[in-house]
Amino acid sequence: MTKLYLIRHGIAADRADYSNDEDRPLTEKGKQKTEQVAKCLHKKGVKFDLILTSPLVRAKATAEILSQEGLGKKIAEFAPLAPAGDIENWVNWWSKWEYNKDDSSLALVGHQPDLGNWSELFVWGRTEEKLIVKKAGVIGIRILDKDKPIGNCELFLLTSPKWLL
Amino acid sequence: MTKLYLIRHGIAADRADYSNDEDRPLTEKGKQKTEQVAKCLHKKGVKFDLILTSPLVRAKATAEILSQEGLGKKIAEFAPLAPAGDIENWVNWWSKWEYNKDDSSLALVGHQPDLGNWSELFVWGRTEEKLIVKKAGVIGIRILDKDKPIGNCELFLLTSPKWLL
Repeated sequence: MTKLYLIRHGIAADRADYSNDEDRPLTEKGKQKTEQVAKCLHKKGVKFDLILTSPLVRAKATAEILSQEGLGKKIAEFAPLAPAGDIENWVNWWSKWEYNKDDSSLALVGHQPDLGNWSELFVWGRTEEKLIVKKAGVIGIRILDKDKPIGNCELFLLTSPKWLL
Repeated sequence: MTKLYLIRHGIAADRADYSNDEDRPLTEKGKQKTEQVAKCLHKKGVKFDLILTSPLVRAKATAEILSQEGLGKKIAEFAPLAPAGDIENWVNWWSKWEYNKDDSSLALVGHQPDLGNWSELFVWGRTEEKLIVKKAGVIGIRILDKDKPIGNCELFLLTSPKWLL
């Protein structure tokens, strides 16, 4: 069964301290919590064939922690995972991905409200911003029709770090 | 913030062994896993003002475990939580409940696909059976408008026991 894990970046430095929002790094607490979440996922047997990440610093740092904790060796930056990215770009990418098959596992590391919106699009085909996705939170989605994923998925996990740690 | 926790009963005895489906008890494994889930919720600070349960044996046993593990002292049977129950009966009950206020916490113990359907109704106002709710799994919902809960909630948790234990 093809599984998607949408993972929000960890706690990042204050906006006020960075002239460019894209440069904000994870805080120490953000790194720690993200590591704990990654260790938990690893313990539960989660493995990613690929970790796609938003190109922003706080997302890339989150993706690197996931990889360092043994969840997957391959990381790739994916511009549509930046804030306000279009899921159709992902769908195009997905249709050509070499691991697009029944037992693949893919992580998407990015931002809110986009990850919640994408999740609602995957599962219900429309978005109402009704999913609460905390920093370093995880959404688990099962793709039922890999040729037409939008609206053809099920939700099996939505959690903030609180419940995993 | 008013919170609802919809909790599916634990693993129950085989249908083949009981002439009446309603009488099926939890198995030993079902009790153990439900206890572990309850302990985890307790550790995370969850408390229920009331535990409403389906009148079926496997649901009542689940509700009793939640109570024994310190999650709430009050349990009440609620017929609309039996399979195929109508959420409108719950809405009527809710409008008159003494703890219906901004910081209440309520558990609903029941069955699939009803708990997933009710959750979709709470959050999106319609149901497509897109939530995967395993035995002893937990759904967490935040009610935004307590006078009109259907379609006016957010989802903050969906998990099987696997991720909590």
